[in-house]
Formats: sequence, C-alpha cells, structure tokens
Amino acid sequence: MIIVLGSAGYVGSKFVNYFHTLGQEVFGVGRSEVDYTNIPSLRNWLKSKNPRFVVNAAGYTGKPNVDACELAKAECLSGNAVLPGIIREVCEDLKIPWGHISSGCIYSGRRTDGVGWKEEDEPNFSFRSPPCSFYSGSKALGEEVLEGAENCYIWRLRIPFNEDKNPRNYLQKLLNYDSLLEAENSVSHLEEFVQKCVECLEKEVEPGIYNMTNPGSVFTRQVTQWFREEGVTDKQFQFFEDEEQFMTKAAKTPRSNCVLDTTKAKKAGIGMRPVEEAMRESMQKMVKGAAV
Amino acid sequence: MIIVLGSAGYVGSKFVNYFHTLGQEVFGVGRSEVDYTNIPSLRNWLKSKNPRFVVNAAGYTGKPNVDACELAKAECLSGNAVLPGIIREVCEDLKIPWGHISSGCIYSGRRTDGVGWKEEDEPNFSFRSPPCSFYSGSKALGEEVLEGAENCYIWRLRIPFNEDKNPRNYLQKLLNYDSLLEAENSVSHLEEFVQKCVECLEKEVEPGIYNMTNPGSVFTRQVTQWFREEGVTDKQFQFFEDEEQFMTKAAKTPRSNCVLDTTKAKKAGIGMRPVEEAMRESMQKMVKGAAV
Repeated sequence: MIIVLGSAGYVGSKFVNYFHTLGQEVFGVGRSEVDYTNIPSLRNWLKSKNPRFVVNAAGYTGKPNVDACELAKAECLSGNAVLPGIIREVCEDLKIPWGHISSGCIYSGRRTDGVGWKEEDEPNFSFRSPPCSFYSGSKALGEEVLEGAENCYIWRLRIPFNEDKNPRNYLQKLLNYDSLLEAENSVSHLEEFVQKCVECLEKEVEPGIYNMTNPGSVFTRQVTQWFREEGVTDKQFQFFEDEEQFMTKAAKTPRSNCVLDTTKAKKAGIGMRPVEEAMRESMQKMVKGAAV
Repeated sequence: MIIVLGSAGYVGSKFVNYFHTLGQEVFGVGRSEVDYTNIPSLRNWLKSKNPRFVVNAAGYTGKPNVDACELAKAECLSGNAVLPGIIREVCEDLKIPWGHISSGCIYSGRRTDGVGWKEEDEPNFSFRSPPCSFYSGSKALGEEVLEGAENCYIWRLRIPFNEDKNPRNYLQKLLNYDSLLEAENSVSHLEEFVQKCVECLEKEVEPGIYNMTNPGSVFTRQVTQWFREEGVTDKQFQFFEDEEQFMTKAAKTPRSNCVLDTTKAKKAGIGMRPVEEAMRESMQKMVKGAAV
C-alpha cells in the first residue's frame, strides 16, 4: 500500500488519482484524520498501515498566494520545514522509503554560467541567501532538514500547470490576473510531474533530489502568445513595467523566478517532455474542455 | 496563577522557584504533561487554567551544546521558531499576556559604531545574515514569528551564569573545558535575569523586546583572572590560538560572541547589576559552597 499525506491538496490529490489509475492500493489522509505533525502518532499509524511507500504532499503554500505566508510564519515553518523532519525520523525508523514534494522556488534566475540550477547547487533564494519570501525560506530549510535522509526522494515541483480550472494552475493564474510580470521560469506539468515521481518507485531510481520540471523554460510573454495561437483567448494581456512596479502594486514579498537544470532526472530515466509541447497540449485541452 | 511552559529546564525551573519565593501561585509544565505544541490542546488547557501570565521557557538548546542542533534541525525549528508562534496565537486569542525567553545569540560582535546591539537592530548572526549556527538561526526566526505580537515580552537571555554546579552554567563550562576561546560577551546572571523578567509584570513594563544581560561585557581571560582572584581555582587555563583553531578542534558550528546594549531595560526600571559585580558574587558563592 502507498500512503499520501496531504491528499486533499492540489498536488496530493493528483498522486492519489494516479496510484488509483495504476490499480495500486493507495490511502490518502489529511491532518484532521491523522496527526502526522506528532512523531508518536505518525509512527503508530504508519506501523499499523505498513505502507511500502509514503508521499509527503502536505505543506503550507499560502492562499491565495505566497504573500499569505508572511502572516502565518509559524504554520509555514511547521508545514514546510518541521514536518519533513518528522516524517524523515519516522520513515527512517520504520525503514519506509518515501518522497517529499519540494520546490524549485528556492532559486532565483540562472547560474552565473548561464545554465539552470542543478540539484547540488546551494539555494540562492532562501533565508541563508536573501532576499527571499518566507515561503521560499521555509522550503529551503525543509531541504536542509532532509540532508542525508535515507531512502528519500526530494522532488522539486515548480509552478504547476495543466488544463484544470483550478486557481493554483499557472495557466489559470495568467488568465485571471489583471497584469502580468515578464519573467523566465521552469515549470512543471502537474500530471506528468506526478507520473515521473511515481516512476521512481518502479524504476528503483536512486534516492535524492530531483528537479522535476519540463526541460527548458518559458517567458510570460511567450505563454500569452501561445494562448492566442492555441485559441485559448484573444485577450490583450497587460504587463507590469518591471519587477519594481510589480512589487509595489501587486506583491508583498519577492517572488522566485528561476530556471532549473533537468539533466539528472533525464539520466535517471524520469525526464519530462519539453515544456512547449506540454504547455501547448494543456492549452489545447483547455480549448476542447471549454467547447464541450 | 502564573503558568511556566518548559518548567523542568535550566531557565524554566528558576522561574517556577522565583514565583514560589514571591508566594505566587505558579504551575509549571513540560511537554509530556501538556502538548503545548498543538494549538487546540494548548488553548483548551490554558482556558481551563485561566492564568494571568504565561512564561515560555520551553525551547530546544541542544545537549551538550549548540552543535547538537545541527543534527536535530526539525526539533530545533519546532521548539524555537514554531512553538512561539503557537503560544502567540493562543495567548492573543485568550488575551493572556506572556513572556518568551529569547537569546542574544542572534548577534555577533558589536555594532559598527562600537556600541552593543540594541533591541531594534536586525540580527546579524541568523539565517538571513549568515554565517550562523542552526540554533541561532532558529531563535532569530522565533523573534520574527513574534513580530507585532500583542502583550508579549521577548526577554533576551545570554550565556546564563550563577554559582550552580550545572553543566549549563557558563562558569562551570569554563572550569570544565580543556581549552577556552578568548572572546567578548554580554552575559546574564540567571536568577537576576528571572527576577527582572518577573518585575515586568509588577511594574507593568511596556511589552516588547528587552536585552536582559548584566550591563557591560566580559572577556574570557578576564573571567579566568577573576576565578584566581576570588579563589575559585588556580588552574592555568589553556586558550585556543584563535577562532579558526577553535572551529577546527572543538566546534562544528560557529558560536555567537556578542555585546548587547541594556539601556532599554534600565530605562524601563528592570536593569541588572554591572556584570563584574554579579559575576564576582557568583564566584564567591562557589567558593563558599565548595567549603561547606
């Protein structure tokens, strides 16, 4: 059996669905059902279930966006930095392999040599390398807490997108915002992210950190151009003049915009599709869905 | 009634004792008795007790020293950064004034203008201002979590000392170590720290951050000289050549050595004795205690 912690969330629910699709027994829980923030209760519960794998999709993201984390710092640290340590302790004790959903938002920009950030690069958008948002800081601490963890995958998701009418879908966000910020980012097709994470189990991929984004990157203006080309919208998108105007008018805390290198995932046999292919397909599904 | 969280610890037990001495009703608990890391259980318990004040002396310090925190990062964040946020939420909700034991170890050295660090200065030995130990980083995050907290005292303790034969007593540490690091520090006489914190309640001192150290600072070599002058020991103390040798031979993570400014506490009427007076008195008591 597989256990998914945080199974009601945007990411956790996709893991539950995908394991169902594969015909695998999966048990998803939220914190109200099992107090996984408490070591003894998590240990007792996992012992009784004896899962062959645990997915930690629980975390604190802030609603409607990361600005909310600045006002809920304790919850943010608890969910993103302490919880991974609790799960690590229990899973190592019970010898259960597990995977943690981390984030690429612990980086900003590209490496000075122009390539994307690799798994072993120190975060440059974290408490230890300011500036950062409290959210990014807490996610980087979460990875620090997992340093040296046994039988643990750290899967870095980055700005999930698909065809869903979900406010956390990057494409929906772009369609809903009044003004956009031009920036370059690596992004993850959510269902493909989940599929490739799960392949780690079947393919017995070596545990460790993996940048799980679609290879390449997108610029915001490029995405709005694809929206028009794919017939999603003919809206004329407004853009902020620059990041300063964005910070003054729309954001309380700085945002990570970054490019990740995906070579490690590719070599491990869990590489994802090129970003343009994945994103245009999502747009085509949006158009079909709207036409039905 | 007064409640002390973390009452079995080196600092918490002194608060309990002192309230007893004052003839005040005090109820001390540890985490095994009341799960104060859980918001609903802390809220229900505090509601049933209806205390007029809460002291948070719970925290994660690492044993035998802060190096241990590097191997227990989740516990360290949980105890020092998340817990203050939980207590804040519950105490604000129930309108209970409270005090949190913070630390001066979020600073290093002196301000560039040569004076000690003041309460409003940004920490310079924290995750946001590296390098730092994981312990100091977590304590600085704890203060960040308490930013803007209502009816909350943040009392910064720094290297507690007294005449106790306790391994956490700074004077005992100096006597026990094989080699010492020459450094300048502000330090707190523990019982006086507790007494002055408690005076905040009676004197209705304005809530906020207070550097609760004995005015002035001590150099390690000076303290060893006082040891000889007061007849505590005639031991010839060995010193590390420099901080680099100390880091290579004795420490895993950098230590804070810093001087705090105590003007704010003095103005508020809760100032402590000059450091030399307090420290020599502790040494005299050590000698008397040993002679008994």
